[in-house]
Amino acid sequence: MTRYAAPLTDIRFALFDVLGAGALFQRLPGLESATPDIIDAVLEEAAKFAEQVLAPINHSGDQEGCVLDKASASVTTPKGFKEAYATYVDGGWSTLTTPEKFGGQGLPETIGAIVKEFIDSANVSWGNFPMLSHGSVEALKAHGEPWQQDAFLKPITDGRWTGTMCLTEPHCGTDLGLLKTRAEPAADGSYRISGTKIFITAGEHDLTENIVHLVLARLPDAPPGVKGISLFIVPKFKVGKDGKLGERNALAVGSIEHKMGIKASVTCVMNFDGAEGWLIGAPNKGLNAMFTMMNTARLAVGVQGLGLIERAYQNALAYARDRLQMRALTGPKFPDKPADPLLVHPDVRRMLLTQKAFAEGGRVLALYAYMQHDIATHSADEAEAKRGDELVSFLTPIVKGLLTELAQESTYDAVQIFGGHGYIAETGVEQYARDARITTLYEGTTQIQANDLLGRKVLATGGAGLKHFLGEISAFCQQQSSTAALGEFVAPLAIVTREWSELTQELAKKAQANPDEVGAAAVDYLFYSGYVALAYFWARSVAAAETSTLPADFREAKRLTARFYYTRILPRIHAHGAAIRAGSDTLMAMSDVQFG
Amino acid sequence: MTRYAAPLTDIRFALFDVLGAGALFQRLPGLESATPDIIDAVLEEAAKFAEQVLAPINHSGDQEGCVLDKASASVTTPKGFKEAYATYVDGGWSTLTTPEKFGGQGLPETIGAIVKEFIDSANVSWGNFPMLSHGSVEALKAHGEPWQQDAFLKPITDGRWTGTMCLTEPHCGTDLGLLKTRAEPAADGSYRISGTKIFITAGEHDLTENIVHLVLARLPDAPPGVKGISLFIVPKFKVGKDGKLGERNALAVGSIEHKMGIKASVTCVMNFDGAEGWLIGAPNKGLNAMFTMMNTARLAVGVQGLGLIERAYQNALAYARDRLQMRALTGPKFPDKPADPLLVHPDVRRMLLTQKAFAEGGRVLALYAYMQHDIATHSADEAEAKRGDELVSFLTPIVKGLLTELAQESTYDAVQIFGGHGYIAETGVEQYARDARITTLYEGTTQIQANDLLGRKVLATGGAGLKHFLGEISAFCQQQSSTAALGEFVAPLAIVTREWSELTQELAKKAQANPDEVGAAAVDYLFYSGYVALAYFWARSVAAAETSTLPADFREAKRLTARFYYTRILPRIHAHGAAIRAGSDTLMAMSDVQFG
Repeated sequence: MTRYAAPLTDIRFALFDVLGAGALFQRLPGLESATPDIIDAVLEEAAKFAEQVLAPINHSGDQEGCVLDKASASVTTPKGFKEAYATYVDGGWSTLTTPEKFGGQGLPETIGAIVKEFIDSANVSWGNFPMLSHGSVEALKAHGEPWQQDAFLKPITDGRWTGTMCLTEPHCGTDLGLLKTRAEPAADGSYRISGTKIFITAGEHDLTENIVHLVLARLPDAPPGVKGISLFIVPKFKVGKDGKLGERNALAVGSIEHKMGIKASVTCVMNFDGAEGWLIGAPNKGLNAMFTMMNTARLAVGVQGLGLIERAYQNALAYARDRLQMRALTGPKFPDKPADPLLVHPDVRRMLLTQKAFAEGGRVLALYAYMQHDIATHSADEAEAKRGDELVSFLTPIVKGLLTELAQESTYDAVQIFGGHGYIAETGVEQYARDARITTLYEGTTQIQANDLLGRKVLATGGAGLKHFLGEISAFCQQQSSTAALGEFVAPLAIVTREWSELTQELAKKAQANPDEVGAAAVDYLFYSGYVALAYFWARSVAAAETSTLPADFREAKRLTARFYYTRILPRIHAHGAAIRAGSDTLMAMSDVQFG
Repeated sequence: MTRYAAPLTDIRFALFDVLGAGALFQRLPGLESATPDIIDAVLEEAAKFAEQVLAPINHSGDQEGCVLDKASASVTTPKGFKEAYATYVDGGWSTLTTPEKFGGQGLPETIGAIVKEFIDSANVSWGNFPMLSHGSVEALKAHGEPWQQDAFLKPITDGRWTGTMCLTEPHCGTDLGLLKTRAEPAADGSYRISGTKIFITAGEHDLTENIVHLVLARLPDAPPGVKGISLFIVPKFKVGKDGKLGERNALAVGSIEHKMGIKASVTCVMNFDGAEGWLIGAPNKGLNAMFTMMNTARLAVGVQGLGLIERAYQNALAYARDRLQMRALTGPKFPDKPADPLLVHPDVRRMLLTQKAFAEGGRVLALYAYMQHDIATHSADEAEAKRGDELVSFLTPIVKGLLTELAQESTYDAVQIFGGHGYIAETGVEQYARDARITTLYEGTTQIQANDLLGRKVLATGGAGLKHFLGEISAFCQQQSSTAALGEFVAPLAIVTREWSELTQELAKKAQANPDEVGAAAVDYLFYSGYVALAYFWARSVAAAETSTLPADFREAKRLTARFYYTRILPRIHAHGAAIRAGSDTLMAMSDVQFG
């Protein structure tokens, strides 16, 4: 019904021309097999899977939703979801980025992110089923005992089982220190897990023979708060140390949520009633383990935002070309037609260019962050690995926070371009807006991302990642200072980068005097930082286009989109800067009763 | 489930203290009965109706939706809607603002707008049923022959029938010049209407015994385009010149739309198959007549935006007070509780203050515009009436465009404050976001409002309304220049008002050279203008609070909210101003193929 074509040309441009991934992967130990040819072949197959298998069941999945049968505590996914999952597993997609020693194909996470963008563009609801497995794989890789890795990791990597992350409880979402789920040690070294978890994505479904839950719970002697939380692996069907499937475990879905969007992605209340589980990692260190996974999951949700921006753009553009309505302000452009297409109207173009700037600029940002992750994981050079880790750590809240927020704007614009038709379910674009709406909420709201960025990544840790990033932009500006074609970008980029740096220093001072300054500035600082980061990646895109052998129209489009971004989007930082400088008093002065 | 309390105190403050409506209505011929006592009594009853009758069926209405029975071409509204409508009619609400000579109560439209805000806060879907009647009443008042007024106006005013506006056809939404519906003259002076209309709000329902459609159609000899469109009144059941109900007319609902929101407001495809209709006004002048009504309808949709901002604020505030999550950055505020309420967190306060600033400032803006409408309609002083007309004409696209856009942000913020719970249907706030989404689309998209504002109201007509408005702001700034308590607002207000004026003059020059400059600037200009207008009304609100006898907390809240608005929201105009000054080339330079 609505269209999707994986943006392979732009992906290749971002990956190879802008970011130089070809050379990078060749020199990173363990990623040598990721040659440009292999990557091309993988991406072409991934594109087909997304376009031909997932996109056609996106709208129907939204209409049907998931259905809970209370009596059997089982969930039926929409038509075609199970078959699509089987195709995914048969195609080897679940093993794409798992290291070879765990039976995977060992491709870079960056490539996994691109495949994920395709999947999320095509069908973000479906994408949540395999996505959640990623966390289990990470946890088991990092913290699992050998028998746990043998018993759990292989079937998850193979896609025969899926994983979940069970954090939230009714009274605690962000504030995990409040959680109550208990874990009692049993004689055989396992634990009995009891409690209720909510908002569990893919907590129950019919895609696989088993589901593995990563559960945060408290040991009997655990200290209160976040320092008394441990991580357990709790399968739906018990798993012997020999890896054999046993009887049904004492856990079940209690109900499923009726949501605004991602209706085909099931969101469960999970009841654990003395379920058998196994400790992963050290006692009371569960939150640390979970945070490692959450960082990856946050990047992944940022990619969901990116996927929806791209999908919204493609459909809005197609509609703007087809739909005839009114004449151009400068006179008819298609006098033989009853009216001109929407694409002639300046504000329709403004919205389309906004989407295009966010999709293509956001893609470079996301892939850059993932490449830092790959560097951190694979580089043989310790200093380089550390730098990569600091950069990805710094950029994760920006990728997650910014791209999911821009997905709100882009899906809004798509509906707006469709006009009244955009509000009707059958045209499909309103679904993108509803689906996108979850992305600023789960895996930490934008507020959480913003506090993570400013409070933790910039101020608390001395801003190592920011310093690397600022240094890199400065180097780029100097390097390109004499490239005439880049003057219109490099000059303003140097200015906003300096202002960003100064603003950060101001904030650091103010925050020392008053911690509320961090919270009062955080969201605006996230946007500010994100818009500057996009400006950097747009300048790099133009630089890469200059020397690229891609068609002239593609290269010229990069320049024109960058120009649009610099002149019409980037000035938003002035509003955010002013809001930040207004300080915390403007927010904190009002008493409770004065709110009304 | 979700709460709503009509904001009576703030309404009274806006109406009487800020805008001086008490004195105004007393001196406007025909509105003398609108004394403060009468207004208070009306608003208190309206509050009860909205809170007790409409709010309780808002969520259930969304869940149930309207149901079409194809066989009988009948639509069943959700449970309670019919009873609520009967209560509305029994309470005399349908006659509130109709002039006494047409059997109404003759209260100011301003008061009608307040009642409408309550209704839209409580249940915007339900509010669409009576709202659409307003257009029929206006058309019949202005253009109806005496027998048409006798036969149609009374039952609509009484609420026994409702009205619709049938403009859009599948191939033409904004571009009415393309419309194809035909009207063939019959021997008895009536016409036979044939064609298909889409997106017809309240086109069919079970609330009343008859439905009257205002239909745009072409006479056989009509010139092409917008100059060949006539307006007809076409009832569901035929109406004799004696006003008696006759047989079923040849029109019926063909299908109903499945929409993102306002699911309890039915949106119909209406098929006219040689239906009996009557010409309203002059042949080929239908669009003019329809535009008069549309202006009123646009203000009314602006009020829908306002209603949803208020509702979003109330629920977000209640949740922020109840929900305990994390500790304040400056240390625990409620050490005896397991965590602090969300309200201690700076960014939650930022979102709440944004909503509060939009609700209360937007309310003054909307009521001011409606008061100009009342002045235009009632003033005995021709110059004053003309000025009122020019002001409301200028402000209509701002009220509609700005308040509906701010409703997107405010309902977004409400969902954000609820976190993951905001995404779940049962908490109710996601419905506000879905319901609000239609308001920037129908009765002319934001793009249409923006072009109307800049192209027609400011540039094409010499900007009469803008000049009045600028003059009024200047006078206010001068008047208050020595009021110390207002210094922090009056000084920046004077600056941004001058900048607004200069920007307008720049645009006027650029538009003469290139018409695309209008379309390229329009939406940013709408926001720019709207934010300055809100700044003016916030300054006036603080001035009024200074001399008001309301409680100190209420008055102080006005100052603090205004300060928040001036320091954290108003700077957005810098981003809009920069985007405007970037010019149309940044949008028009990209060729079709370069969009990708």
